[in-house]
Amino acid sequence: MKLGIYQNHPEFGNKDRNIDHAVTALHNTGADIIILPELFATGYQFTSREEAVSLSEKIPDGKTCCILSELAASQKIFLVFGIIEKDDDKIYNSAALIGPDGFIGKYRKTHLFAEEKFWFSPGDTGLNVFDIGIARLGIMICFDWWFPESARSLALMGADIICHPSNLVFHNCQKAMVTRSLENGVFSATANRIGTEERGGKAPLIFTGGSQILDNKGNVLTSMDAKKTGVSIADIDVKAARNKKITEQNDRFEDRRPEYYKALFD
Amino acid sequence: MKLGIYQNHPEFGNKDRNIDHAVTALHNTGADIIILPELFATGYQFTSREEAVSLSEKIPDGKTCCILSELAASQKIFLVFGIIEKDDDKIYNSAALIGPDGFIGKYRKTHLFAEEKFWFSPGDTGLNVFDIGIARLGIMICFDWWFPESARSLALMGADIICHPSNLVFHNCQKAMVTRSLENGVFSATANRIGTEERGGKAPLIFTGGSQILDNKGNVLTSMDAKKTGVSIADIDVKAARNKKITEQNDRFEDRRPEYYKALFD
Repeated sequence: MKLGIYQNHPEFGNKDRNIDHAVTALHNTGADIIILPELFATGYQFTSREEAVSLSEKIPDGKTCCILSELAASQKIFLVFGIIEKDDDKIYNSAALIGPDGFIGKYRKTHLFAEEKFWFSPGDTGLNVFDIGIARLGIMICFDWWFPESARSLALMGADIICHPSNLVFHNCQKAMVTRSLENGVFSATANRIGTEERGGKAPLIFTGGSQILDNKGNVLTSMDAKKTGVSIADIDVKAARNKKITEQNDRFEDRRPEYYKALFD
Repeated sequence: MKLGIYQNHPEFGNKDRNIDHAVTALHNTGADIIILPELFATGYQFTSREEAVSLSEKIPDGKTCCILSELAASQKIFLVFGIIEKDDDKIYNSAALIGPDGFIGKYRKTHLFAEEKFWFSPGDTGLNVFDIGIARLGIMICFDWWFPESARSLALMGADIICHPSNLVFHNCQKAMVTRSLENGVFSATANRIGTEERGGKAPLIFTGGSQILDNKGNVLTSMDAKKTGVSIADIDVKAARNKKITEQNDRFEDRRPEYYKALFD
């Protein structure tokens, strides 16, 4: 199975241009699944909640979802992408999953980062796994990586692949994802963006690129640098993620002892 | 505060020699706390349960604990070390914590690795934190690192430092510990051993050294290579581990959302 990541360099607020670039890049890739960055069509550094609201859309009826649904149908591909989701008077930092037959599901970011708390409502979907037939996809967004419970929950719910749309400004996520894949025995696909945003007199945000796909032991299958945009693809045997063995006597899940993990819920 | 690690090269079964080496190395280090490897006095690759039993001792009344208690008193130091613990007809892969005033507490390894399951009973103490005044110490042993719940539980229970006696044969723990320190905002001290054991016709075990102390952001403060034995020390401000902030708006613990982590207990 071919798993892909799309690394982009969006122009803030120019959705038409950014979606257009993505549609062009995602033609004839040969991939079965492609992960796009967090908020791939809008940019990231908002100066007010109103500005973020003005760039928000409904899932799945908004324009971004409609265009990517057409793309998914024509390319016979599954897409996971970040989007500002509008729902009544709330907006969420969300990811949508769309396949060849249309909309499948969405995820609203559980752990909001920094100023995101000023614009977005905290996610209320919880962490979910979507079985798309060729794989079971768990979705988390960017800063969710910091909390080991995010990837762990998705893996325990059966995810083969952690789909990880991101807008990373730290440099430590890529290495931490090695631990996430290894500890959980799952593939992971982190799709980041590049470029700098410096809006409203705020400190500049420098996005670190380094989008990567890791196998279920944490080995890097493909990694992009901090300058390139485009698609990168890895061939994976997704069923490898369903074998949680570490040694003949050890299994990532069977060896867990939840009776001693109560502090996680105190 | 000065935190130390002791990396050794034990001779299998020769407790007198191995303890003697440790006592010599641990004189006049200037450290306040030193972490020793897992099973530091006995070696690791057993060929039968009887052999492991023959090297086991009571905590705190056995010889190893008594000698290290004298050392802790004379050096005014806290020691965490791995030991085969005998308790009636069971033996455990344990760690003991001893201070200048004597025995403080013990931990029995929660997640047993590979053939350890043939010799040892699974730990039944749970993961615990010991407040020794100058710091709050969480103890986990070697393979416990693979399970994110181990370090997470200790951090949530208030550990400033993860004390991590180890006998590592994998090369991936040292990097994963960077994630453990970063995600939890805790110092960590992994004390590993070096050398090779090849006993009873089994495949050789090559211990990877690389003992290390990390700060509460995952930065390496000191790291030993795969050849050296001895003590390495880092100066730490232990109170830094009590600030869990990531950004002005983010906190490692306050941002957790346990209502969405239920898969960890299903």
